[in-house]
This record gives sequence, C-alpha cells and structure tokens, in this order.
Amino acid sequence: VKIVTFITDFGTQDAFVGSMKGAFLSITDQVHMIDITHDVPSQDILSAQLILNDAYPYFPEGTIHVAVVDPGVGTQRKPLIVESKGHIFVGPDNGLFSFTLEDPEAKFWMIDADRISPSRSATFEGRDLFAIAAGRLCKKERISSIGRSISTIVDQSPPKPVWNGKVLEGEVLQIDRFGNLMTNIQWAQVEKNVTVHLGKRKIGRAVRTYGDGKPTKPLALWNSTGKLEIAIPNGSAAMKLRAKRGTKVTVTKG
Amino acid sequence: VKIVTFITDFGTQDAFVGSMKGAFLSITDQVHMIDITHDVPSQDILSAQLILNDAYPYFPEGTIHVAVVDPGVGTQRKPLIVESKGHIFVGPDNGLFSFTLEDPEAKFWMIDADRISPSRSATFEGRDLFAIAAGRLCKKERISSIGRSISTIVDQSPPKPVWNGKVLEGEVLQIDRFGNLMTNIQWAQVEKNVTVHLGKRKIGRAVRTYGDGKPTKPLALWNSTGKLEIAIPNGSAAMKLRAKRGTKVTVTKG
Amino acid sequence: VKIVTFITDFGTQDAFVGSMKGAFLSITDQVHMIDITHDVPSQDILSAQLILNDAYPYFPEGTIHVAVVDPGVGTQRKPLIVESKGHIFVGPDNGLFSFTLEDPEAKFWMIDADRISPSRSATFEGRDLFAIAAGRLCKKERISSIGRSISTIVDQSPPKPVWNGKVLEGEVLQIDRFGNLMTNIQWAQVEKNVTVHLGKRKIGRAVRTYGDGKPTKPLALWNSTGKLEIAIPNGSAAMKLRAKRGTKVTVTKG
Repeated sequence: VKIVTFITDFGTQDAFVGSMKGAFLSITDQVHMIDITHDVPSQDILSAQLILNDAYPYFPEGTIHVAVVDPGVGTQRKPLIVESKGHIFVGPDNGLFSFTLEDPEAKFWMIDADRISPSRSATFEGRDLFAIAAGRLCKKERISSIGRSISTIVDQSPPKPVWNGKVLEGEVLQIDRFGNLMTNIQWAQVEKNVTVHLGKRKIGRAVRTYGDGKPTKPLALWNSTGKLEIAIPNGSAAMKLRAKRGTKVTVTKG
Repeated sequence: VKIVTFITDFGTQDAFVGSMKGAFLSITDQVHMIDITHDVPSQDILSAQLILNDAYPYFPEGTIHVAVVDPGVGTQRKPLIVESKGHIFVGPDNGLFSFTLEDPEAKFWMIDADRISPSRSATFEGRDLFAIAAGRLCKKERISSIGRSISTIVDQSPPKPVWNGKVLEGEVLQIDRFGNLMTNIQWAQVEKNVTVHLGKRKIGRAVRTYGDGKPTKPLALWNSTGKLEIAIPNGSAAMKLRAKRGTKVTVTKG
Repeated sequence: VKIVTFITDFGTQDAFVGSMKGAFLSITDQVHMIDITHDVPSQDILSAQLILNDAYPYFPEGTIHVAVVDPGVGTQRKPLIVESKGHIFVGPDNGLFSFTLEDPEAKFWMIDADRISPSRSATFEGRDLFAIAAGRLCKKERISSIGRSISTIVDQSPPKPVWNGKVLEGEVLQIDRFGNLMTNIQWAQVEKNVTVHLGKRKIGRAVRTYGDGKPTKPLALWNSTGKLEIAIPNGSAAMKLRAKRGTKVTVTKG
C-alpha cells in the first residue's frame, strides 16, 4: 500500500479534514493516511514549508505528501505535483514546496484541474482537486496522465544565513508550541565550538541536549533536525527573550 | 476493507478516543479508521449533526459513521443504527442523525444493547456499545442480527429558511474556528444574483471565493458545501459582526 | 497486521508526530497506527501513565504501545521494552510503565540503542529509537534481538488509597478537560453504598451516571474505568471545588 501524508491549516474542529480524506478514499482505499498536522497557523505558508521539510525525509520513498495551505484558492495559482528525492508532493503553487528547488533533479507538473475535477468548488480544492489527484497517483496512474510538465515553481524560500567575516548571521524562522526558537542556521554550516547570540544577548555555547542546560536559563542547541535552536528548559524562550520570526541570531566561532 | 469514521465530543487529551478505537479493533482490524473530529463542542448535538452531514457524502458508499455526542448516556435513549444513501450511521438516538429523516428510503434500527454488550458501563457507550456494534457491522454481520427495526428516530433538524415575499429569511447555524458564519440557506434555493443581509446590516452580493472580497470587509459567499457563508477575510465575522447561532440572515433577489 | 498505539507530549502542531510515524513506516508499513493522545501535558509522566493504563486494556493482545514523555532524553535513562498481559510497551524508563510492576509476570528489556540506532539525535529518541524499535517488533523480530533482559524498571506509581478505620482515604490523581476529578479509589475496593467527601466537603452517595446528578451540583460517580470520579454536570469540578492533583478524597461506608 502507498503512504499519503497530509499537512494543512484546516484545523481539526470542522468537516474539512474528514471531507478531504473521504474524497481521497472514494478514489482508492489502498492507502495508509498519516496526518503531519492540520494546525499550521492559518495561511502561514512558511510554517507549513518548514514542518513538511522537517518531516518528509523520515517517510519511505514513494510517499505522497498532500499540502494544502492555500490563500489563493479559486484564483489563477497553479495546482502542482512535484517529484523530488523519491517523494511526491501535491498542493498549490504558492511556495509550499520551495525546498524542492534545491534539488537539481526535481520535476514539476501543473495538474490539469479542469480534466480531473471539472465541477470543483471555488473554495476547497483540498477536497475537490488535491485529494483526487493524490488518490489517482496512489492508484499508480502516471503523473503525465493528470498534469503537464512545467519548468519551475514559485519560490518562497526562507532567508539563508550569511557570513560576515567570522560571524554567521541568521534569524529565527519559527517558534514551536513550547516557545522554542528554530533558526535558519544548520549544524553542517559551522564548526563544533560556537558561541550563539540572540540579537545582542549572549546565549552561550551550543550544547547537545536540553539536559545540558540549567532550568530557566536560555540555551542554544543543535536540534533533532540539525538546526540551531534557542530554548529555555521549562519555559518559553519566545516570551522571555521577546523573540519572534525574523529576530537576528549570530554564531561566532570559538 | 471497510471504512469507519468517528465524530465525537471526547476531545483528544484523554483516554476516550483510544479506548473506543481499541474496543473496535478487538472486534476486527480489517478497517480504515478516519477521525472526522473529536472536538465537537461538549454535548452540542447540532454541531455534530451539521459537521457529519457536510462530511459523510464524500466518503464511499458502505462507509460506517460512528457519532457519539451523548448527553443521555446511561438513560433510556435508544442506541441506533441508520442506513441512508448507502451509508451506515451508529450512535445515540438524540437527533444526531436528523438529516437522514429527509431520505424517504432511510431505515432505522434500535441496537439490542443487552445482547451485544451486557456488561457495559453506564457512562461510556462509545467504547462499550457503539464501537462494538460498528465493529460487528464492519465484519459484515447483518444489521438485523444486532438490532431490531424501528419506524423513526428523534428529529432535531435545524430550522429551515422561509420565504417572506421576495425575501428568504434564514439564520446562522454554526460558526467555524475562523469565526466564519455558516447559514441554513442553500445555493439551490435561490437565484444567482442575490443581496445578503446579516440582521439589518447589508453584507452585499454573494461572491464565489474569498479572493473576491476585500481584506477586513465582510463578504457573503456560497461555500464548498453549497451553503451561504458570511466571512471577513483575515478576520472573525462572529466577533466583528457580533453574530451567533440564531442571528437572522436574509437574502433578496437582485 | 499489527496494531501500534502512540501516546506522547509532542502536541500536534509541529513535525514531531509525523517524523516519528515516518521513521516507523520506513521499517514496516504492515501496521495499524492509532493515536491515544499527543496532548499529554508537557513532561507529565503521571498523566501519560494514567491515560495509557486506562486505554491499553481495550486493545487486542499483541498490540505495541509506544509512549514518549521523555524529560531525560539524551541522558543515561534506559530505553525500555516491557511485556505485560499480552501487550508490548516501548519507551523511556522513567516511570511511564509503573503499572506493569503490578503484574508479577511482566518482563523487562533494555533496548540496545547503540546497535539499532547508532547515529540517533540526542533530543528525539521517539523518532530515532523508539519508533525504530517498535517497527522492528512489528516485523516480528524477537525482543531479545534488539534488547537485553533486565530485572525491573523505574517505579513512579501514583499513591494508593489507605484505610483509616472505616474510612478509605484517597486523592485526586488527574483532571480531565471538562474539569472532572479522577481519583485513585477503585470500585473494586469498596462496597456499593458509600458516601464521598472531597476534602471536608460532602459530595454525597456515589451514583451510576451523570444523569443521576443535578445540573450544577457536584456528584460522585463510578466512572467507565471503575474509578471514583467527582464531577459537576455542565461545569468544571476542578474550578468550582478548587481541587487539584493531590486534593484528598475520602469514602465512608453507608
């Protein structure tokens, strides 16, 4: 059976998620459905992109990922299928899949919406188009039978950190539900011994695990996706350090 | 495999949902389980009814829908199986399935609770009775082997809109998590060009998609289930327009 | 197919749950995955223990339960497999599985983490170790091939009620999302006719179902897991009675 994941901003209180899955199952029930999350902040394409990029590599190759954060539904934005690193992505062309632009082998298709869902609603293509397209791919239909190849997709990649002499200048990209600050700085970019600042505040050396910090004291660590994270054990770094998306983070060797 | 959906007001923090699914899986594991939602407001039968009625038609025929919003658990209210339009519904007889009363072909059964779950608890029939009944139907047991036919069910249908001359008078039935107002007025009931009022406030012409409105301005649109919805793009119509369940909505031709 | 349940404090907003399930599915997709809850209060081992102990007996024997509430991740705490009453439990050795210590037949293993996941992260063993171990058990690998037998596990059992003459003295263990108070007093420990006090406040006779109480009046009932519960129909007993974990509850015969 195929594995299909879902990531949306639909929430879990209304009929949206159920209707979308029902539409999918009306195409095929030979599927494992996994929810990545339906609690992406409303219309927050960047959050969805970061969460999907964190989660998808852990799924087996061949997994289909349906992502629907879609402020442009009903307008001319393209419905999309992307193939990258053995995974398939289905959703609107609004930047959700920007991370696949870093893969030179990635391939892009525009779904032929009028052919596969001629009477779709103007406000809910998650149910009426993307679930149908994903269901048909799950049944092993060839991508070329439901879409046509295009050369590229919308790029809404998050800002990348830049070297300024010996200082790597990055920023906070996302805040998790505990108030931990996820940055755009990757382990792979720097040496092991670095000192971290959040704005002008010194956080200290980057450590290995939460247990290496002191309760209520801010700490910097390399998290489980290889990114630099700033956290306060048993507290909210976002609130206590007054940080938000875009707050500057710098890393200095030594 | 059979598809089984669940809609409840159990929330997702406690052991309730897990226990109910475990009880089901102890009967059969040849099943696809789909959560419609477990976040129905506590004891809000009308909300559950509207959400289920929005979602179920998108599932394939043969799907079993388990709905448990059950303020009368432990009392004399009947445990129910309903068959309508190729779908099976299982839950308490308290109005949850009122929408099936509009189907003249619908059939109703009272579950023989003492036979299929003699030692059930007095407070959790979702786990002890409805999951068991649904599991047995999923194993293709005939409905008549676990219940007896009855002639009708409790009717708690929401109010319907009424024509007053050239004005269709309806009301707000439900508010989603974004504060959008769902009304009881259906696309099929009116002509294309209509003007919408919420109470005495003019909202304007009903449009096709959120993108047709202006940010922060109220708009009326025909939503993805064919109902008239009043929304404020990027805002809460419920809060800003001080609307709630029962607030009057009128539609005038032209 | 095998059934695997998950209970964690990861929440459902971030990539954690998806990544963990993806890692599992990369080992095997012959599985039914069921979420008990991911909304355990952060690092609240006692809550997770109580919820898991309430839910697991309803699953069929052979079910694998993955529990990850893991404040000690990255430290020397043991990664664990427990077998008890036909069920398998996988997670950190921090008290999560204390209830299995009451089963004299229970067996315990320490997972050989360096062998099955040598390059795991220091902060996310739910994804990098426990999901992998559970996936391998799901593929019918013998437990002894991924861990070594140990004699016991960490005991963080909740306090038990004690008899003081004719009075059974217990306490509130947990509060559900409705504000209902779950105690550590079991139906099996007392006779049918008992009078219940919360602190010095008389609640009254323990009844059978919520419907036996009066709206807004506190009541005591034997709940669906056989425990004494104190509730206020349509209200929060925790707030109105100013009760919390540890508040004393006494039961007197007659």
